[in-house]
Amino acid sequence: MMIKVHAALFAPNAARVLACLHEKDLDYEFVPIDLRAREQKKEPFISINPFGEVPALEDGDLKLFESRAINQYIAYAYADKGTQLVFDDPRKMAIVSVGLEIEAHQYDPPAARLTKELYVKPLLGVATDDAIVKEQEAQLGKVLDVYESRLVQSKYLCGPTFTLADLHHLPTLDHLMKTRVKAVFDARPHVSAWCADILARPAWLKVVAMRNKN
Amino acid sequence: MMIKVHAALFAPNAARVLACLHEKDLDYEFVPIDLRAREQKKEPFISINPFGEVPALEDGDLKLFESRAINQYIAYAYADKGTQLVFDDPRKMAIVSVGLEIEAHQYDPPAARLTKELYVKPLLGVATDDAIVKEQEAQLGKVLDVYESRLVQSKYLCGPTFTLADLHHLPTLDHLMKTRVKAVFDARPHVSAWCADILARPAWLKVVAMRNKN
Repeated sequence: MMIKVHAALFAPNAARVLACLHEKDLDYEFVPIDLRAREQKKEPFISINPFGEVPALEDGDLKLFESRAINQYIAYAYADKGTQLVFDDPRKMAIVSVGLEIEAHQYDPPAARLTKELYVKPLLGVATDDAIVKEQEAQLGKVLDVYESRLVQSKYLCGPTFTLADLHHLPTLDHLMKTRVKAVFDARPHVSAWCADILARPAWLKVVAMRNKN
Repeated sequence: MMIKVHAALFAPNAARVLACLHEKDLDYEFVPIDLRAREQKKEPFISINPFGEVPALEDGDLKLFESRAINQYIAYAYADKGTQLVFDDPRKMAIVSVGLEIEAHQYDPPAARLTKELYVKPLLGVATDDAIVKEQEAQLGKVLDVYESRLVQSKYLCGPTFTLADLHHLPTLDHLMKTRVKAVFDARPHVSAWCADILARPAWLKVVAMRNKN
């Protein structure tokens, strides 16, 4: 049975899962969830995710939600397909786990708030809060300082190869590169090169193409 | 070489790692970090964690931070010791991964804010913000409604056995059970029984005893 992804194309958390499926060269059925109609808060969706948030994934009788958990599953369950995104060796994987947690707890909070202020609000015709932007840009800058010092030492965040930790940054990174926050990335040469590299991956370009078709 | 944990005993993120080490029956050296002296923002600590937050762990030449990443490492690297907290089977592990993400992204935000308002602030002689408490209690209640429906079906959050997903709740759970928020847990009988069960685990009681000695 084919993998099913229940999601909205424009949700960063959904794009994170699609990026992973394309890196792993997996076929899947995309089941659109209309967020404006609040389908994510109604049956049948909330039977898969009682928290009412996209995306959700079905693989046979396995029903999963939370984008980062879905991606860990895909990366391990389909280890032999497409790009290797995780490692079996616990010491090598530990470095990736730290990178995954940094993305979730250090990078994502400012990146998600900046995406909301500078990308989502203008789309909805709502005014951006410049005080929040200034505060969150400073916060993001501190995180990117750490990334810069890591990326001086290795091409990707967790070593010489692209891993799930790099991949998890793509959705907000893609949005932010179209805003004034691009300057915060560009001010750090290794971060800037890393952004250009991972945003140009064929798997990610396929996700962008899906969004642009809609 | 023995595992070294750099931490402050009262930090919930540190207690999360100690709980895991005790579940795995591992010996370790505890290296105290004085948060009031802001040692976590200075060398030698920031050479391990450039984000300047406890805990950090050293296992030989491996240096890790972010409590949830440290625990995943411990659980996988020492799979043959103590309590089994993770699974090799990707489909079984996927359920635990979802539980881990729910803890980090749904449970922890309100639990951490309530811990700050009702446990940390009174210790520091600072007034609690009752509006925040009310709002976060409501948020926590929604999460615990989902937990209640899961715990009707299985003794622990991710199935019949205690896993890393249950363990990650312990530090804030322990603090909140000493506050008025206990009523939010007690109002849900299966959640209440789960709390009593996991808080009574010998490994957790050892962490509590370490704190009480200080």
